[in-house]
Amino acid sequence: MGAAKKLGLNIRARRLKLCYSQEKLAEIAHLHRTYIGSVERGERNISLVNIIRIASALKTTPSELLSGLTKEQS
Amino acid sequence: MGAAKKLGLNIRARRLKLCYSQEKLAEIAHLHRTYIGSVERGERNISLVNIIRIASALKTTPSELLSGLTKEQS
Repeated sequence: MGAAKKLGLNIRARRLKLCYSQEKLAEIAHLHRTYIGSVERGERNISLVNIIRIASALKTTPSELLSGLTKEQS
Repeated sequence: MGAAKKLGLNIRARRLKLCYSQEKLAEIAHLHRTYIGSVERGERNISLVNIIRIASALKTTPSELLSGLTKEQS
């Protein structure tokens, strides 16, 4: 699995744990719902600023969202 | 301190721990030395792909490089 895909799964898992819809996460993070969807599917080379926005909206840390990503993934 | 600045400090600390020059890190990560410098100074909104490249070159994980970044930073 690629790193972007793993990050997407981490974000989705955390979002669902908080019972947030993609719409709600998008609203809190000041991002677009379709962007959130593409990130969760691992389709984006997401930037640090947006990693931080999403982590903040999901009440977690950037480091936690990136957990499980290894150097083998690229 | 901003999150990009904290990430830059983490990268620099890890690089120096391995006794790597910016040139050596740049070469291993397939990035430019001046880009590494700007990342270490916190001047870049670095992307996931480059976070992974640098983590791999520094024999660590993306999550470890982002340690200490909190939601208060943006």
